[in-house]
Amino acid sequence: MAALKRFLIGRPLKSTELGEQKLTKKKALAILSSDALSSVAYGPEQILLVLITVSTAAFWYSIPIGIGVLILLLALILSYRQIIFAYPHGGGAYVVSKQNLGVYAGLIAGGSLLVDYILTVAVSVSAGTDAITSAFPALHEHTVGIAITFVLLITLLNLRGVTESASILAYPVYLFVAAMLILIGAGLFSIVTGKVTPDLHTPIGTPVAGIGLFLLLRAFASGSSALTGVEAISNAIPNFKDPAPSNAAKTLMAMGGLLALLFSGIVYLAYYFGITPNAEATVVSQIAEHTFGRHLIYYIIQGTTALILILAANTGYSAFPLLAVNLAKDKFIPRMFTMRGDRLGYSNGIIILGLLSIVLIIAFQGQTEHLIPLYAVGVFIPFTLSQTGMMVKWIREKPAGWVPKLIINTTGAVISFTVSIMFFLTKFAQVWTILIFLPLIVYLFHRIKKHYEAVSEQLRLSTCEQAVPIEGNVIILPVSGITHVVEQSLNYAQSLSANQIIAVYIPFERDDEVRFEEKWNKWRPDVRLVTLHSPYRSIIHPLSKFIHTVQRKASESNYQVTVIIPQFIPKKSWHNLLHNQSSIMIRAYLLFRKDVIITTVPYHLKK
Amino acid sequence: MAALKRFLIGRPLKSTELGEQKLTKKKALAILSSDALSSVAYGPEQILLVLITVSTAAFWYSIPIGIGVLILLLALILSYRQIIFAYPHGGGAYVVSKQNLGVYAGLIAGGSLLVDYILTVAVSVSAGTDAITSAFPALHEHTVGIAITFVLLITLLNLRGVTESASILAYPVYLFVAAMLILIGAGLFSIVTGKVTPDLHTPIGTPVAGIGLFLLLRAFASGSSALTGVEAISNAIPNFKDPAPSNAAKTLMAMGGLLALLFSGIVYLAYYFGITPNAEATVVSQIAEHTFGRHLIYYIIQGTTALILILAANTGYSAFPLLAVNLAKDKFIPRMFTMRGDRLGYSNGIIILGLLSIVLIIAFQGQTEHLIPLYAVGVFIPFTLSQTGMMVKWIREKPAGWVPKLIINTTGAVISFTVSIMFFLTKFAQVWTILIFLPLIVYLFHRIKKHYEAVSEQLRLSTCEQAVPIEGNVIILPVSGITHVVEQSLNYAQSLSANQIIAVYIPFERDDEVRFEEKWNKWRPDVRLVTLHSPYRSIIHPLSKFIHTVQRKASESNYQVTVIIPQFIPKKSWHNLLHNQSSIMIRAYLLFRKDVIITTVPYHLKK
Repeated sequence: MAALKRFLIGRPLKSTELGEQKLTKKKALAILSSDALSSVAYGPEQILLVLITVSTAAFWYSIPIGIGVLILLLALILSYRQIIFAYPHGGGAYVVSKQNLGVYAGLIAGGSLLVDYILTVAVSVSAGTDAITSAFPALHEHTVGIAITFVLLITLLNLRGVTESASILAYPVYLFVAAMLILIGAGLFSIVTGKVTPDLHTPIGTPVAGIGLFLLLRAFASGSSALTGVEAISNAIPNFKDPAPSNAAKTLMAMGGLLALLFSGIVYLAYYFGITPNAEATVVSQIAEHTFGRHLIYYIIQGTTALILILAANTGYSAFPLLAVNLAKDKFIPRMFTMRGDRLGYSNGIIILGLLSIVLIIAFQGQTEHLIPLYAVGVFIPFTLSQTGMMVKWIREKPAGWVPKLIINTTGAVISFTVSIMFFLTKFAQVWTILIFLPLIVYLFHRIKKHYEAVSEQLRLSTCEQAVPIEGNVIILPVSGITHVVEQSLNYAQSLSANQIIAVYIPFERDDEVRFEEKWNKWRPDVRLVTLHSPYRSIIHPLSKFIHTVQRKASESNYQVTVIIPQFIPKKSWHNLLHNQSSIMIRAYLLFRKDVIITTVPYHLKK
Repeated sequence: MAALKRFLIGRPLKSTELGEQKLTKKKALAILSSDALSSVAYGPEQILLVLITVSTAAFWYSIPIGIGVLILLLALILSYRQIIFAYPHGGGAYVVSKQNLGVYAGLIAGGSLLVDYILTVAVSVSAGTDAITSAFPALHEHTVGIAITFVLLITLLNLRGVTESASILAYPVYLFVAAMLILIGAGLFSIVTGKVTPDLHTPIGTPVAGIGLFLLLRAFASGSSALTGVEAISNAIPNFKDPAPSNAAKTLMAMGGLLALLFSGIVYLAYYFGITPNAEATVVSQIAEHTFGRHLIYYIIQGTTALILILAANTGYSAFPLLAVNLAKDKFIPRMFTMRGDRLGYSNGIIILGLLSIVLIIAFQGQTEHLIPLYAVGVFIPFTLSQTGMMVKWIREKPAGWVPKLIINTTGAVISFTVSIMFFLTKFAQVWTILIFLPLIVYLFHRIKKHYEAVSEQLRLSTCEQAVPIEGNVIILPVSGITHVVEQSLNYAQSLSANQIIAVYIPFERDDEVRFEEKWNKWRPDVRLVTLHSPYRSIIHPLSKFIHTVQRKASESNYQVTVIIPQFIPKKSWHNLLHNQSSIMIRAYLLFRKDVIITTVPYHLKK
């Protein structure tokens, strides 16, 4: 087991090696932007899918809508840049909302993002698997298995540590960016050189019957799904090499620039080539076919697109554990999320994220497409909250040059809020569940926090409250016969200089009772023996009643009651079946039901 | 939980109420003979199914073959009667073989029967379910579910206690016997009154081409499957009211008489009416239709037949636990089979039998027909062994009038052996597995016995070997902070007047180490604190290494090492998720890997 673990995730790292596990800007860009960049593969298509409900003549609206998305992107990037500098320890939307809008706003943002990262993993791995099974239909029946394998691989990579996963995952991400840039470059070149007839599209400004504001907003909201993942960097600042905030900010700007370039390129080419979305081929693949034909480069573009969709999951793996640490430090989720694993990653967060996304993939049998709107709305709620939080911050603190900052965040907040509302108005059937589970999650956070607070209150050593003094000890030793084990336990009890030792024997038959008492008095007449006849053949009940009686008496003189339970430790694990192990059951019962100290004297069987 | 258990299986009974749980002859006949009697429903059919492979003209051979089966039945009944008186404490084939032929013969007989009772339950419940789903085809897809429900019901009835199950199950058994007797009576009446034309069958003695000795022996072996279950009474003697052996013997004779009557009646009517077995209707149902037409009484016969097939399983429930007790007393199977449950039945045996037969039903998807030969051979092996054992007994002991007894057992042994061999020769494909698993089971029995013997050897208090004396105590207390829990554990450790108390703190960071040492020295400078810096963030490894060092030193002066582990006991079980419970892991690790005494100081959280 240990050797397998070493092989899979590598040797353990010392806590002092943490510095070497930090990310350079290049690696960080690769693993934190894969989610955002991958949405270029479906974002533009989402806009066209809404417009086509009117007519293909409406496609020219994708240009102004695309510009709208770019403005939103600009607002978000600038705004998250401000968040990075204002909250250099990370935490993003959760921390910003909590500090400026109050704890509940923070929990809504945090809970929403936690769930969203799980959806990110499930949705993007499923989408990538779909791309693969479309190419090789024979694999279709293994969709779920393939998707789960990918999740396990990414989980394993992340358990090896963030730099190691970044080193491996950087290649496909940069390959995708390169492939997209070549595609856009070649496409534009063919337009400029006039190789493409300009009559494939209706000119911008053509009047189209049936277009209304609602439809345009819906198309805009759909296109905005390309912006999911923009917030990831702000959550993952602690993973950056020093100076972390400035490195994170530069990475964010680079990601924003790349995303804007790829997004506008694809939107423009799709418009110019008059691409109509259909079930057989994605918009990107149609542009690629249009530009290059079905040649090698077409397949490279298809392949890197599938790969980046799967790797988009990795963004979730970078951001989820760090967000969880922030929530766990504030005691809203279990403490285990703050523990670093052998390779210094927050392995509990990584493993839980992997497990929950596998559950989602199985539950939806790999068909997670209709989770996309839920996933998008789950991002825009924290977007809105964090921008609003920043607005409040500027208004409250009024630092030098706060007005332009306020304007940026206000723009971001208004657009994000509009997009969120649009999702509810236009895709209510797919997003209503968030109205149920988000309050549930916040309630759970609240309950957990309350429990932790109650515990630490109980544990605190206050100088005024005195611990109950222990004046002496009473030891109870249940015995099942006169054997080596009993002898050893008895010797131990006597070595503890307790005030009283009581051996307890529980016979099922009256004859047995008398016989045992005689034997005992011959063997150890110095130790008091109590027999508890149990006509119903239960051991736990009479023992528990007896302990209760002893305890009541003992507590009068501040005596502590200890129960000594001998336990067999067989040499081979299958031998456990051959022993009744009533000692384990008795121990568990007494520990949870009674307030007694329990001492286990192990007896290691040698054969 | 407890209330549900009370509702399902009734109030617990005192050990002294055991007498009231004993069976009268009438009840014993009902529950112990259901297996044997139910075989009337398929035994005669088995003979015809072999003969039909030659021609329907060969059907007259069923009469001499039937007589052969009756002779075998007579030999078995007389022989088991002798076993009952010779071994009045029950145990049947296992005890007889063990005592006269040696322990391995006993284990083969016992193992064979144990497996056989599991097969009995699975096969008979499946057969009964088949009868029901044939009548109501809509239920067909639920076969497995229905069969499992019946197994659960019978298990529950048996957990309530043997008399209670007998009271309920007696009705259908006697109803079946009555229905069969009416059927046979009415059939004979119609023959005698000449209502049936005598030309439906070939006369006895008609020469038939292609009949050989091998085929006749095969038909005989198949017909002998009607005799499975004959041994059950000899295993279950302890369940009878006093005088148990004579009551058991009388019950056995009654069962033999009834079985002979029903078997010969069905064989004769089948022959006289010229019944040809077919897939649509069983032989019994054809006889019933022939005699009464498809009237009410026909359906009553069909219904009681289905019922008795299911209740045949109950014989397994009576015999399996008692056989298991015998094997467990000899330490060949886990001791838990000797424990009486709340209702004084051997509930572990009952539950295991139920579980294993459910596993078989699921594994074979309710299609257990081809397990029948396996099941029959699994009965005839112990038949042969027990008869041979009795032969050896008579020859060895030569009591008054031993010669006729020897003749009876010799006849039984020879016929049983022939039948066993016939099964191997004619149905090898279905019974070869017994040659694999029977040796495996015997080997397992042997290993279990060896383990128990090794354990009791280690536990025995021999006067020569002295227990290691304990001269003093060293207490190790792992601490995770300065809290109420630590204070309480420390006070307890000090109350035990140990020779040395060492608090152990395991920091992951150097800063933390220094800080904690300062805090500790201010709080409890009198208690020695050891800090073990753990750069790899493991708690168990440094602690385990430290304990090892302390232990080595302590053993030099015969000091005992105790580790005190504080443990949170949350008020609500879901709170367990919120605590790392490293204490449970540490305890388990130390208990199984190290030879230290572990004391758990519970800290019951109040909120």
